[in-house]
Amino acid sequence: MTTAQERLAESVRRLIDVTIRTEVDDAAVAAVTEKIDSATAQLSDSLVPGSFGVRTGPDGQSIALGNVVIGLRNPVAPPLTIRHDADGTVHTEFTLGAAYEGPPGHVHGGVCALILDHVLGATAHLPGKPAVTGTLTLRYLRGTPLGRPLRASAHVDRIEGAKTFAVGHIAGPDGVTVTAEGVFIHPKGGQRDG
Amino acid sequence: MTTAQERLAESVRRLIDVTIRTEVDDAAVAAVTEKIDSATAQLSDSLVPGSFGVRTGPDGQSIALGNVVIGLRNPVAPPLTIRHDADGTVHTEFTLGAAYEGPPGHVHGGVCALILDHVLGATAHLPGKPAVTGTLTLRYLRGTPLGRPLRASAHVDRIEGAKTFAVGHIAGPDGVTVTAEGVFIHPKGGQRDG
Repeated sequence: MTTAQERLAESVRRLIDVTIRTEVDDAAVAAVTEKIDSATAQLSDSLVPGSFGVRTGPDGQSIALGNVVIGLRNPVAPPLTIRHDADGTVHTEFTLGAAYEGPPGHVHGGVCALILDHVLGATAHLPGKPAVTGTLTLRYLRGTPLGRPLRASAHVDRIEGAKTFAVGHIAGPDGVTVTAEGVFIHPKGGQRDG
Repeated sequence: MTTAQERLAESVRRLIDVTIRTEVDDAAVAAVTEKIDSATAQLSDSLVPGSFGVRTGPDGQSIALGNVVIGLRNPVAPPLTIRHDADGTVHTEFTLGAAYEGPPGHVHGGVCALILDHVLGATAHLPGKPAVTGTLTLRYLRGTPLGRPLRASAHVDRIEGAKTFAVGHIAGPDGVTVTAEGVFIHPKGGQRDG
């Protein structure tokens, strides 16, 4: 079930897109800005300090609603839905709009890195035992288009003690755009996530 | 001078932050969502198709107002101000909030990658001759804190033909958090930026 807070985040995602692309006149932009400021004031009546963090849901699973990649309450997150396949592969399908632009018409190379860091890292996550990135290496083969269906996937290459070696890539309509390999580590105490 | 469109983006950045952190009740959240939807409709009266792209300013310089890292019109961008020092070093100082969270209280490792991709790439940019990322390798030394002053910097290690080899890092109050090295390429025709 989508919560009121998640619907708000979806609404803000649409606002972000048109904020970049609007061509209405300055007076209309200023009027909208006032409206947004008033919305911000209403939401600020009660705020958690700092950031969202990770909370534990009713089922005891940790939920990262504020996460910049997967967080349903974070308007900056596309948000990606990470799927764990039976064979241990992880994948996600998505389309990115104007908010993620680098080269004209293309996804910023660093956004590809952000997504691959998360997707490769997800192969190393275990319930209650999150992994953090040790190293990540990216190879850019071609531009990644905005507004076209994309797929990121990753799998574990090998595990050595606390280290998981993962590999993966992003592919678009014209094939693989970026490949990645990374080492992810289960820290002692297992605090971090993402 | 800050334009009306840039002020709108600043306003939406504040909205993003409180959208994640608000604890007002569901009815208040729903009322704000309606207000945001109406703002989005107003801005949608006239839109550029697709994404912002890179446009040429009055001074002939290209301006990437929609860029996800530096774009003053993009609410997802922190936005970073990239400074080119006399010795060829590039640096930027910034603080990241709730919107960029990965591990609780920390910047997502992939956001560090996004920033380092851009900052290292900036060492290779020449007027009218942007560079694209070939490869990027990141080493994560410790968590990067949210809400604390951060500094990213990079310099050119060497140039071989069309390839620029750059190195850099992000540092926080407790020292360097992530190091990076990358190879950036000037494509023939020089189309891309970021």
